[in-house]
Amino acid sequence: MTDRNKPASGEDSLIARYFKPLATDPGAFDLGDDAAILNAHADDIVVTTDAIVEGVHFLADDPPDTVARKALRVNLSDLAAKGATPAGFVLTLALRAADDAWLKPFARGLGEDAGLFGCPLLGGDTVSTPGPLMISITAFGRVPPGKMVHRSGAKPGDRVMVTGTIGDASLGLDILRGGAAASALADDAAAKAMLVGRYRVPQPRNALAKAVRDHASAAMDVSDGLAGDLAKLCTASGVSAVIDVPGIPLSAAAASLLARGIVGIEAIVSGGDDYEILCAIPENRFEAFAEAAGVAGVAVTSIGTVIADTSAPRFLDGEGREIALKRVSYSHF
Amino acid sequence: MTDRNKPASGEDSLIARYFKPLATDPGAFDLGDDAAILNAHADDIVVTTDAIVEGVHFLADDPPDTVARKALRVNLSDLAAKGATPAGFVLTLALRAADDAWLKPFARGLGEDAGLFGCPLLGGDTVSTPGPLMISITAFGRVPPGKMVHRSGAKPGDRVMVTGTIGDASLGLDILRGGAAASALADDAAAKAMLVGRYRVPQPRNALAKAVRDHASAAMDVSDGLAGDLAKLCTASGVSAVIDVPGIPLSAAAASLLARGIVGIEAIVSGGDDYEILCAIPENRFEAFAEAAGVAGVAVTSIGTVIADTSAPRFLDGEGREIALKRVSYSHF
Repeated sequence: MTDRNKPASGEDSLIARYFKPLATDPGAFDLGDDAAILNAHADDIVVTTDAIVEGVHFLADDPPDTVARKALRVNLSDLAAKGATPAGFVLTLALRAADDAWLKPFARGLGEDAGLFGCPLLGGDTVSTPGPLMISITAFGRVPPGKMVHRSGAKPGDRVMVTGTIGDASLGLDILRGGAAASALADDAAAKAMLVGRYRVPQPRNALAKAVRDHASAAMDVSDGLAGDLAKLCTASGVSAVIDVPGIPLSAAAASLLARGIVGIEAIVSGGDDYEILCAIPENRFEAFAEAAGVAGVAVTSIGTVIADTSAPRFLDGEGREIALKRVSYSHF
Repeated sequence: MTDRNKPASGEDSLIARYFKPLATDPGAFDLGDDAAILNAHADDIVVTTDAIVEGVHFLADDPPDTVARKALRVNLSDLAAKGATPAGFVLTLALRAADDAWLKPFARGLGEDAGLFGCPLLGGDTVSTPGPLMISITAFGRVPPGKMVHRSGAKPGDRVMVTGTIGDASLGLDILRGGAAASALADDAAAKAMLVGRYRVPQPRNALAKAVRDHASAAMDVSDGLAGDLAKLCTASGVSAVIDVPGIPLSAAAASLLARGIVGIEAIVSGGDDYEILCAIPENRFEAFAEAAGVAGVAVTSIGTVIADTSAPRFLDGEGREIALKRVSYSHF
C-alpha cells in the first residue's frame, strides 16, 4: 500500500479513501512512503503474521467488517499470548476488484479494531488476484527486553489454564455450513448468533497480556484446536499434561449440544478458531494470575496439570478414564 | 508458520523440512513459537510489505526458486531505497497443495537469497487456498535513528538518478507472453534470457543502501514504472522534474528494440518491475555518491534535474521537445 501511492490510479484513491485514516501512527507517514518506521523504544519488538483466505478462514458472504476484524484479531491473539502490547500492523490485501461496497465496511471494521486495540496501520500492499480474497497481516507488539512468553517453559506441577470458552467457533462454522448444530439450534436464534459471532469475530485476550507476561511459564493462543495446541506447548516445553475434560470451559450453547449428543467432545477440543490463551501457571502464581485476570475482565479456568512425561497430553473424563482423540487439530495440508 | 508447528501434520513437516533451515536468527526461535523477536538494537526498524500473486507478478510456469527470489527481492528493494540494512523477514505462503517438487526449489532459492542479502526468515504462516499461489513478505531493515530516506525531501537543483537499466523487466514479461519483443529477438537467445531474467529475478540494490542514506535527499524504488514512480516522488517532495529521455540507461537489448521501433519509449518508462533505485542527489553530493556507487559496484546514471514546479515531471527527447506519456505506470485496479 505504501509503495502504491501514485496519483490518479485506482489503487491510490482506494488507499487514500479507506486506509489513510487508519494510519494514525507517525511512523506510518500517512502511507505516503515505501516503508514505515517502527519505534522500538527500549523494548523488544514481537513480530507475528497470520493470513486469512476466503473459503478457508472466512466465508464469501461473511460481512466485510467482520472479515477485517478477524484478520487483525487472529494476529492480536498471538501478541496477547506472548505477553506483548500491540504496536501496529501492516496489511496485504489481495482483491479481485476495488469494490467500494465491500471495502468501505472492511476499512471501517479494521479502523474500529485498530483503535480499540491500540494497534495502528503502519503500511501495506494492495494487489489484484483472480482468486479468493486473502488478507495477510503482520502485527507488531512490544515487551520489556527478554520478557516475551514462549511456548517452552512449562514445568511439571504448573496449572494448565485457558481463557474464555472452547469450541464455540467451530460450532459457529458448522452452523454457517448448515451442519448438525444448525438444525439442533433451529429454534434458538440467540445461541446460533453467539456461535456464529465466535467464528466470525474472535475475542483476542489482549487485556490479559500483562498478567500472562507476569505469571505464565509458557503460553500460546489456541487457534488450531485445544488438544493439538496443548500438544505443541508440551512438546516445546519437554513435558506432558493431564486434562480434566469436564473442567474445560464451555458456553451454555456448546454444553447443551454436547449433552444432547449433537456434537462430540473431540469436535470441541480439536475445532480451530478459538483464539483463546492457553498457558501454564506455576501453583505459587495462580492466585495472583487469577486476580489479575479478574481485574482485566477475562475469564480464566484451570483445566489440568503439567506433568513430567513426554507422551501426548491425556484427556480424562469425569471418572478419570482416558478419552482417545483421533483428531487433535486442524491442518491446512 | 510459527504458530502452525504441530507434530505429525503436513504443515509441520513442510515447515520443518523447508523453512526451519532458513530461520538462522536467534529471534526466530527455530520457527517453534507463535512470534519472533526483532532486536532493534539502537536503530530504527524500517518495515515494508509486498506481495506477489501467480498470474499477476509471476507466471504459473516460472521456476519456483525465481518466484521465491522475486518475493523476497521486491521487499529488499524497498529497504535499499530507504537506506536500510536488511534485518529479517516474515513469510505468508498461500498454497493450493503441499507440493514437494515446487516447495523444495522454492525454499532453496529463498534460503540462498536470505543468506546472500543477510536477511533471515523470522517466522510466517502457511495457508491453503483454492486460488492462485500468493507469497506475501514483510521485511525489516535497520537505519540509524531518524536516517530513513523518504520520498519527500527532493529539492530544486538536485540531480535525478537511477540505478541499473530501465524497462528490461517489462520486456521480459512481453517475451514470456509471446509479444512483439519475442519475435523481434527470435534469433537472440542471450538477449531474451537476459530480459526474462530481469522480470523473474530483480536485482535489488542493497549494496547502495548506505550511499543512498548518506547522500540522497529523497529516494524510492522503481516498481510500477519510472514515470509514475518519479511523479510520486515529486508529489511527496512538492517539486517537479525534467528528464532527458536519451539519458535514461537502457540495456543493449532494450536500446535495440527501441531503435528498431519494436517497442516505444512509453513502454520503457511506464513498464513495471524494474526494482531499481530512483533518487534525488544534491549537486554537492554527486561526486561522493558516484564514488560510493562505484565502490558498491552499482551503476548509477543522472537522468535529469529536480525543478521548482508542481506539474507532472516532463520527459524531453534529444531536441528538448516534451514527450507526451499517456500511461505512466501499472495499477492493479
